[in-house]
Amino acid sequence: MNLFEEGLEFNFAELLEIIIGKGLKIALLVIALLIITPIGKKIISKAIAKASNKEKISEGRIKTLDKLLVNVYTYTLTFIFIVMLFGVFDLDLGPLLAAAGVVGLAIGFGAQGLVSDIVTGFFLLLERQIEVDEYVTAGGFNGIVEEVGLRTTKIRSFDGTLNFVPNRDVAGVSNHSRGTMRALVDIGISYDDNIDQAMQVLQKVCDEFKDDERFVDGPDVLGVQSFGSSEVVLRILGRTENMLQWSAERDMRKRIKEVFDEAGIEIPFPHQVNISKDA
Amino acid sequence: MNLFEEGLEFNFAELLEIIIGKGLKIALLVIALLIITPIGKKIISKAIAKASNKEKISEGRIKTLDKLLVNVYTYTLTFIFIVMLFGVFDLDLGPLLAAAGVVGLAIGFGAQGLVSDIVTGFFLLLERQIEVDEYVTAGGFNGIVEEVGLRTTKIRSFDGTLNFVPNRDVAGVSNHSRGTMRALVDIGISYDDNIDQAMQVLQKVCDEFKDDERFVDGPDVLGVQSFGSSEVVLRILGRTENMLQWSAERDMRKRIKEVFDEAGIEIPFPHQVNISKDA
Amino acid sequence: MNLFEEGLEFNFAELLEIIIGKGLKIALLVIALLIITPIGKKIISKAIAKASNKEKISEGRIKTLDKLLVNVYTYTLTFIFIVMLFGVFDLDLGPLLAAAGVVGLAIGFGAQGLVSDIVTGFFLLLERQIEVDEYVTAGGFNGIVEEVGLRTTKIRSFDGTLNFVPNRDVAGVSNHSRGTMRALVDIGISYDDNIDQAMQVLQKVCDEFKDDERFVDGPDVLGVQSFGSSEVVLRILGRTENMLQWSAERDMRKRIKEVFDEAGIEIPFPHQVNISKDA
Amino acid sequence: MNLFEEGLEFNFAELLEIIIGKGLKIALLVIALLIITPIGKKIISKAIAKASNKEKISEGRIKTLDKLLVNVYTYTLTFIFIVMLFGVFDLDLGPLLAAAGVVGLAIGFGAQGLVSDIVTGFFLLLERQIEVDEYVTAGGFNGIVEEVGLRTTKIRSFDGTLNFVPNRDVAGVSNHSRGTMRALVDIGISYDDNIDQAMQVLQKVCDEFKDDERFVDGPDVLGVQSFGSSEVVLRILGRTENMLQWSAERDMRKRIKEVFDEAGIEIPFPHQVNISKDA
Amino acid sequence: MNLFEEGLEFNFAELLEIIIGKGLKIALLVIALLIITPIGKKIISKAIAKASNKEKISEGRIKTLDKLLVNVYTYTLTFIFIVMLFGVFDLDLGPLLAAAGVVGLAIGFGAQGLVSDIVTGFFLLLERQIEVDEYVTAGGFNGIVEEVGLRTTKIRSFDGTLNFVPNRDVAGVSNHSRGTMRALVDIGISYDDNIDQAMQVLQKVCDEFKDDERFVDGPDVLGVQSFGSSEVVLRILGRTENMLQWSAERDMRKRIKEVFDEAGIEIPFPHQVNISKDA
Amino acid sequence: MNLFEEGLEFNFAELLEIIIGKGLKIALLVIALLIITPIGKKIISKAIAKASNKEKISEGRIKTLDKLLVNVYTYTLTFIFIVMLFGVFDLDLGPLLAAAGVVGLAIGFGAQGLVSDIVTGFFLLLERQIEVDEYVTAGGFNGIVEEVGLRTTKIRSFDGTLNFVPNRDVAGVSNHSRGTMRALVDIGISYDDNIDQAMQVLQKVCDEFKDDERFVDGPDVLGVQSFGSSEVVLRILGRTENMLQWSAERDMRKRIKEVFDEAGIEIPFPHQVNISKDA
Amino acid sequence: MNLFEEGLEFNFAELLEIIIGKGLKIALLVIALLIITPIGKKIISKAIAKASNKEKISEGRIKTLDKLLVNVYTYTLTFIFIVMLFGVFDLDLGPLLAAAGVVGLAIGFGAQGLVSDIVTGFFLLLERQIEVDEYVTAGGFNGIVEEVGLRTTKIRSFDGTLNFVPNRDVAGVSNHSRGTMRALVDIGISYDDNIDQAMQVLQKVCDEFKDDERFVDGPDVLGVQSFGSSEVVLRILGRTENMLQWSAERDMRKRIKEVFDEAGIEIPFPHQVNISKDA
Repeated sequence: MNLFEEGLEFNFAELLEIIIGKGLKIALLVIALLIITPIGKKIISKAIAKASNKEKISEGRIKTLDKLLVNVYTYTLTFIFIVMLFGVFDLDLGPLLAAAGVVGLAIGFGAQGLVSDIVTGFFLLLERQIEVDEYVTAGGFNGIVEEVGLRTTKIRSFDGTLNFVPNRDVAGVSNHSRGTMRALVDIGISYDDNIDQAMQVLQKVCDEFKDDERFVDGPDVLGVQSFGSSEVVLRILGRTENMLQWSAERDMRKRIKEVFDEAGIEIPFPHQVNISKDA
Repeated sequence: MNLFEEGLEFNFAELLEIIIGKGLKIALLVIALLIITPIGKKIISKAIAKASNKEKISEGRIKTLDKLLVNVYTYTLTFIFIVMLFGVFDLDLGPLLAAAGVVGLAIGFGAQGLVSDIVTGFFLLLERQIEVDEYVTAGGFNGIVEEVGLRTTKIRSFDGTLNFVPNRDVAGVSNHSRGTMRALVDIGISYDDNIDQAMQVLQKVCDEFKDDERFVDGPDVLGVQSFGSSEVVLRILGRTENMLQWSAERDMRKRIKEVFDEAGIEIPFPHQVNISKDA
Repeated sequence: MNLFEEGLEFNFAELLEIIIGKGLKIALLVIALLIITPIGKKIISKAIAKASNKEKISEGRIKTLDKLLVNVYTYTLTFIFIVMLFGVFDLDLGPLLAAAGVVGLAIGFGAQGLVSDIVTGFFLLLERQIEVDEYVTAGGFNGIVEEVGLRTTKIRSFDGTLNFVPNRDVAGVSNHSRGTMRALVDIGISYDDNIDQAMQVLQKVCDEFKDDERFVDGPDVLGVQSFGSSEVVLRILGRTENMLQWSAERDMRKRIKEVFDEAGIEIPFPHQVNISKDA
Repeated sequence: MNLFEEGLEFNFAELLEIIIGKGLKIALLVIALLIITPIGKKIISKAIAKASNKEKISEGRIKTLDKLLVNVYTYTLTFIFIVMLFGVFDLDLGPLLAAAGVVGLAIGFGAQGLVSDIVTGFFLLLERQIEVDEYVTAGGFNGIVEEVGLRTTKIRSFDGTLNFVPNRDVAGVSNHSRGTMRALVDIGISYDDNIDQAMQVLQKVCDEFKDDERFVDGPDVLGVQSFGSSEVVLRILGRTENMLQWSAERDMRKRIKEVFDEAGIEIPFPHQVNISKDA
Repeated sequence: MNLFEEGLEFNFAELLEIIIGKGLKIALLVIALLIITPIGKKIISKAIAKASNKEKISEGRIKTLDKLLVNVYTYTLTFIFIVMLFGVFDLDLGPLLAAAGVVGLAIGFGAQGLVSDIVTGFFLLLERQIEVDEYVTAGGFNGIVEEVGLRTTKIRSFDGTLNFVPNRDVAGVSNHSRGTMRALVDIGISYDDNIDQAMQVLQKVCDEFKDDERFVDGPDVLGVQSFGSSEVVLRILGRTENMLQWSAERDMRKRIKEVFDEAGIEIPFPHQVNISKDA
Repeated sequence: MNLFEEGLEFNFAELLEIIIGKGLKIALLVIALLIITPIGKKIISKAIAKASNKEKISEGRIKTLDKLLVNVYTYTLTFIFIVMLFGVFDLDLGPLLAAAGVVGLAIGFGAQGLVSDIVTGFFLLLERQIEVDEYVTAGGFNGIVEEVGLRTTKIRSFDGTLNFVPNRDVAGVSNHSRGTMRALVDIGISYDDNIDQAMQVLQKVCDEFKDDERFVDGPDVLGVQSFGSSEVVLRILGRTENMLQWSAERDMRKRIKEVFDEAGIEIPFPHQVNISKDA
Repeated sequence: MNLFEEGLEFNFAELLEIIIGKGLKIALLVIALLIITPIGKKIISKAIAKASNKEKISEGRIKTLDKLLVNVYTYTLTFIFIVMLFGVFDLDLGPLLAAAGVVGLAIGFGAQGLVSDIVTGFFLLLERQIEVDEYVTAGGFNGIVEEVGLRTTKIRSFDGTLNFVPNRDVAGVSNHSRGTMRALVDIGISYDDNIDQAMQVLQKVCDEFKDDERFVDGPDVLGVQSFGSSEVVLRILGRTENMLQWSAERDMRKRIKEVFDEAGIEIPFPHQVNISKDA
C-alpha cells in the first residue's frame, strides 16, 4: 500500500511537472498562432494588392484571389495547430499520418488533374490572360469566354455550344481580343494577266478602304506571294479594329471582284494542258 | 518468491497507472469523435446546400452528393479512430501501415484512373456541366446524355449506340444544349454571276425565314466568305432555338435552291480550263 | 554464481510477465480476427447482393464477384494478422517490410497495367457495361464479345479474328447492342432535278418500308442535307431493331435505285465544267 | 580490477542470456522457413496445375511457369530469411535497406518496361492468348509467331522480317488463327446495270463456291452496300477455313470477272460528266 | 513533500542544464545563419555576374535573376532556421512535416507543370534564347515575342492574336531573328524549254538582285531541283538581312515572271496526256 | 576527482567491451564479404556461360556482359560494406541516406531514360536480337547496324546517315537479316485483257526465275489480288536469299514488261468515262 | 547546493567524455574526407582520360567533362560532410531533411526535364555523337550544329533559323556528316519506251559522272524500281563525298534531261484514258 501510495505521490509530482510543461508548450503554440496568423494575412493581401497594381485587375477578382489565398492559409495553419496539439498530448499521430498520407498520395495521383486545374486557374485569374467576353482559343476550343473559374473556363463557341474547358488545358491560350487584327486577302490572277496592272488595281481598292474606320493600318498590296499551279497569287494585308477583320475582309473581297470585273482581270479556274494521244 | 511478488505488486501499481492513462486517452478520443462527427456532417450539408443554391441543383442530385461526402467523411473518421485506438493499446501499427501503405500505393498507380473518374464525376454532378437528355460531345463521343454517374457517363449516340464514357474523359465537355444554336449555310455562286444580285436574292430568302419561330436571331447574308477554285462562296448566318438548327438549315437550303432556280443563279460545278496541245 | 542465479531468477519473473503480456496481445488479436472476418464477409455479400439487385446481374456473375472480393479480403486479413503476430514476438518486421515494400513499389510501376485491368474489369462485370454476344467497340477493336474476364475481354471481329483486349482499354466502350439502331441513307440527286419531286418519291419508298418489321420508327425523308460539288444530297432516317440496320439500309438503297430509275431521277456522276483554251 | 571483473561477469551472464534469446529466435526463423517453403511450393504447383487444366496448356509450358514461380518464391523467402537473420544479430539493416530501396526505386523507374514485359508475358503463357505458328497482329507488327518468351515475342512478318516485340506491346493482341475467317468481295457495277440481274449472276458464282471445301459458311450476296461516285457496290460474304480466305477471295474475284464478262455486266471505270463552256 | 521538493530541485538543476544546452544550440544556429546568409548571397551574385559576362545579358535581366535567386535562397534559409529552432524546443515537427510533405507531394504532382515552367523560364532568361521583339516559333505558336516571364512567354502572332505560352512549351524554340535568312524561290519550267537558257535567264535576274542591299549573300541559281509531273523545277537561293527574306522573295518572283515573259519561257500548267477510247 | 576517475575506469571497462563488440561485428562483416564476393562472381560467370551456351554468343560479347555484371556486383557489395561499417561506428547514416536517397530519386526521374537504355541494351546483347552488319528497323530508323552498345545502337541508313538510337527505342526491333525474304510484284492488267492468258504469261516469267539462284522458293502467280479503279491487279510471290529481294524484284519487273509487250498485254493507264453535257 | 554541484561535476565529467567522443568522431570524419577527396578526383580524371583515349575527344571537351564531374563530386562530398557534422552535434537534421527532401522531390518532378537534358548532354559530349559544324537531324530540327551544351544544343537550320534544342530531344540523333552520302535519282520513262535502251543511255550518263571527284562510288543504273500509273520508274544510285550529294544529283538530273532529249526518250506526263459516253 505504502509502495502504491508512493507511486501515486511520485506520479502526482511528475504529473504536475508534465502539466506545467504541456501548458507551457500549448501556450507557446497559441502565441505563435496568434502572431503568425495576422502577419500572414497581411502579407497575402499586400502581395495581391501589389500584383493587382501591376496588372490592373478588377476589384472583384482581387477579392476572389484574396479570399482563396486567405482560406488556404487559414486551413493550413489550423491543420498544423491541431497536429501539434495532438503531438503535445502524446496521441501518437505518426502512423496515422503515414497511413493518411499514403492514401492521400494514392488519391493525389488521381486528383493531380484537379490540382493542376486550380494552379493554372489561379494564374489565369492573377495574370489576366483571359477575360470574360474575349475571343480566345484554348485546349482545342475557340469562342467567347463566358466565365473564368478556378477549375474550369466556360467558352461559348460560335455555333452556340457551351464548352467546359479544364483550366489545365487553358495553359497555352491564344487571346484574339488583345489588339488590332490582321485582314489578309490572297487573290489569284491569271498567268496571262499583267502583274503590275493587277497590283495597281488592287492598290486602288486598298486606298478606298484606307478611310474605312475599321482599318487601323490601311490595307496594302504586298506583292507576288507565290506561283500557284494555275494562278499568280497576290497578297493584300491590313490591320483592323479587333473583331472587325472578317467583315473588312468580306467587303474587300466583294469590292476586288467588282473592280477586277471592270478591269477585265480574271480570277482563273484550275488549268490543265491536255495532250491528246491515240490509244 | 518475495522478489517475484514484489515484481507483480509493482506491476499491479504500474498497470493501474497505465489503465488510468489509457482510459483517459480513450475517453479523450471518444469525446473528440463525438464532437467532430456531427460538426463535420453539418459543414458538409451546409456547403452542399450553399453550392446547390448557387447552381440550382435538383434535390435528388443534392442527396447523392451529400450521401457520398458523408460516407467518405464517416469512413475516414472511423478509420482514424481505429488506428488511434490501436495506438493506445501499443499494438504497433507502424510497420503494418507502412506495408499496407506501400501496397496501397502500388495499387494506387493502377487505380488512379478510377480516382480520377470519381473526382471529375463529383464536379460534373456539382457544377451541372451536363444533364440527362442534353446533347453533348465528350471524350470523342457525342450524343444524348442518358445518365451521369460518379464513375461513368452514358451517352447515347445518334446511331443508337450506348457509349460508356469514363468521367476522366468528360473533363473538357462541349454541351450543345445550353442556348441558341447557329444556323449557317455556305452557298457557292458562279464567278460570272453578279454578287450583289445573289446577295439580294439570298437576303429575301432570309427575310422569309425571319418569321420562322425556329429562328431566334433571323438569318442574314454576311457577304463574300471566300473565293473558291470554281465559285464565290456567300455565307448566311442565323441563330435558332436549340436542336432546331439542322431542320432550319435543311429548309433554307431547299428554299435557296428554288429561289436560285427562279432567279437563274447557278450553283457551279467544279471548273477547269483545258488547253489542248498536240503530243 | 549467486549474482548469475539472481539474474536468471529475475529473468524468469520478467519472462513470465512478458509471456502473460504477449499471450494477452495474441488473444486480443485472435479475438479481433474472429470478430472482424465474418462481419467483413457479410458486408461484402450484402453489398454485392444490393448492387446486383439494382443492376440485375446474373447469378454466375455475382458468385464471381463475391468470390473475388472475399478472397482479397481474406488474404488481406491474414497478411495483417501475420504481421501483427510477428510484431508481438519482436521479430522486427519494419526494415523487412520497407525492403519488400520498395521492391513491391518498383514492381508496382511495371504492374500498374495489370492492376488497372482488374479494377476496370471489376466494374465491367458489376455495371454490366458489356455482355457476351453483344456487338461493341472498345480499344480500337470492334466485334462480338466472346468473354468478359477480370483481366482481358475477348472480342471476335467480323473477319473472324479473336482479339484479346486488356480491360484498361475497354474503359470507354461503345455498346451497339443496347437499343434500336439508326438506318441512314444519304442519296445524291442532280442539281437539275426537282427537289420536291425527289423527296416525294423517296417518301413513298419510306412509306413502303414503314410496315417492314425491321423498322421500329419508320424511315422518313429529312430534307436537303448538303450541297455537294455535283449533287444535292437528300437524307433518309429511320430506326430499326438492333443489328438489322444494315440489311434494312441495303434493301432501301436497292429500292430507291429502282424507284429513281422509274421516276427518271438521276444519281449524278461527278460533274466538271470544261473551258477550252488554245495553248 | 574487481569492478572490471564484475562488469565482465555481469556481461557473461547477459551474454548467455542474449545468446539463448538469439538462438531461440534463429531456431524459430529456421522452423518457420522449413514449414513455409514446401507449403508455398505445393500451393504454386497446384495453382498452376489447376489453371492448366482449365486452359489445357502443354506440359512444357506448365514446367516453365512452375519453374519461374518457384524461383521467384524461393528467392523471396531466402531474401526475407537473410534480412531477419541480420536483424537478430543487431546488424542494423534499416538505413542500408532504405538506401538500397531508394536506389532500387530509381532503377525501378527505368526498368518498369522490363517488369511490365514479364507480367504480360506470364499471362500470355498462362492464358494461351497466342501460340507458336499462329498468325497474329500485336504491337503494330503482324505475322506468324515464332516464339513466345517471358520478355519478348518473336513474330515473323510475311516479308521475312523477324520482329522482336516486347510483351508489353502484345497486350491487346489480335489472333487471326482462332476460328473460321471471313471472305469478303466488294464489287462495283454500273449505275446503268440492272441490280437484280447482277445479284442473280453473283449468287450463281456464290453457289458454285458453296461446294468448295475451303468455305465453311457458303458465300452469299448481301445486297447493295453503298452508292459509289461511279458505281453501285454489291457485297459478297462467306466464311472459310482459317488462312484460306485470301485464296478463296482471289478465286472468287477471278470467277466473278469471267461471269460478268459473259453476262455483259460492266465493272465501271470512274465516271465524270463534262460540261463544255467557252472561255 | 520532501520528495516532491527534491524532485523540483532536481528539476531546477536539470532545467538549468537544459536551458544552457538549448541556449548554446540556438546560439550555434544563429551564428551559422549569420555566417551562411551573406556568403550565399555573394556566391549567387558572383555566379550571375559571371554568367552574364559570358552571355552579355542586359542589366535589368541580371537584376531579375539575382532577385529571384536571392529570394529563393533567403526563404529556404529562413525555413530551415525555423524548423531547427522548433527542433531545439522539442516541438516535434516530424509528423507535421511528414503530413505536410505528403500533401505537398500530392500537390507537387499537380503543380509540376508550374515548376517546369519556372525552371525553363529561368534558363530562357539566363541563356538569352529569346528576346523581346524577336520572331520565334515555340510550342506550336509563332510570332513576335512581347514578353519573357518566369512562367509564361507572350508571343504576338502575325494575325494579331496574343498567345500566352507556358515556358515548358518553349523548351525547343526556333529563333528566326539570329542571323541572315534564306531567300528561296523554286520555279517550274516546261519540259520543252531549254534548261540551260532558263538557268542563264534566272542567273541574270539573280545578278540584278546581287546589288540589292537586302541580300547579304547574292541569290544564285542552284540547278535542277527535281522533275515534277509537269515541270522541271529550278531552284534559286540567296541570303538576306533578317526579316527581309519575304519581300526579297516577292520581288524576285515578280521579276522572274517579267523576264520569263520577255524570254518566252513558260511556267507550265499541270499537264495530262489523254488517250481517247470508245466505250 | 575520485568520482571522475571512477567514471573513466567504468568508461574504460565499457570501452573495452564496446571495442570487443565492434571488433566482432567488423570481423563478421569482413568474413561475410570474403565469403559472398567470390560466390557471387562465380554465379554471375556461370549464369552468363549458361545463357551464352543456349544463345551461342561470341566470346567478346560474353566478356562485355561478364565485366558489366561483375562491376555492378562489386560496387554494390562495396557500398553495402561501407554503409554497414559506418553503422557499426554509430556515425548515423540514416538522415544522410534519406537525403541522398531523395535527391537520388529526383535525379532518378530524369535519368530513367538512361537506366531504361542500359536494361534494354543488356538484353539486346544477351539475346542477340541484333548483330553488327544486320539490316534492321528500330525506333523509326532503318539501316545497317554498325555497333550495339549498352546505351545506344548505331544504325547506318542507306543514304549514309549515321543514326544514334537510344536502346530504349530499340525495344521492338524488326530484323530484316534473319532468313529468306519475300519478293512481291503486283502488276495491273486491263479489264479488257483475258485474266487466264495474263496469268499464264506471268507464270512463264516466274518459271524462268525459278532457276535463278537468288530465289529460294520460286516465284509464282497467286491470282487476282484486287479490282483497281482502272486495272485488275495480279500478284506474284516468291522467296529469295536475304538482301537479294530488291534486285530480284527489279529484274522480274523488267522481264514482265518485256513479255507483256510481246504478248500484247497492256499495263493500263488510269481510265475515266467522260459523259459530255451541254452547259 | 551540494547536490547541484555534484550534478555539475558529474556533468563536467560527462561533458569531457562527450567532447572527447565528438572530437574523435569529427577527426574520423575529417580524415575520411581528406582521404576520399583526392582519390575520387583521381578516379574521375583517369576514367575520363581512359574514355577520351578510346573516343579521341578534343582537349577542351575533356576539360569540360572533368570540371563538371569534379564539381558534382566535390559538392556531394561537402554536403555529406556537413550533414554528418550536424549529426555529430545532435542538431537533429532528420525532419529538416525529410521536409527538404519532399519539397525537393516535388521540384524534382518539375525539373526532371532539366536532369534528363544534362544526363543526355553528358553522353553527347563524351560519346562524340555530334560535333560543331556537322549536319544533323535531332528532335524534329535539322541543320548545322552551332554549339553542344550540357543543357541545349544549338542547331542552325538552312533557312537561317537558330534552334535551341533541349538535349533530351537529341537522344536519337541522325548525323549526316559521318561518311559518304547516297546520290539517288529516280527517273520515269514512258511505257512505250524501250527499257533496255533507256537503261543504256542512263548508264552512259552514269559513266560520265564516275570520274567526277564528288563521287566515291560511281553512280549506276539499278533497274526498274516500280511501275507508276503513267511511267516506268528507273533508279540510279551512287555514293558521294559528304554534303556534295545534292549538287551531284542536280547535275545528274540536268545531264539526264539533255541526254534523254538527244535520244528521244520522253519523261512522260500523267496519262489518262478517256472513254466518251453520251449523257
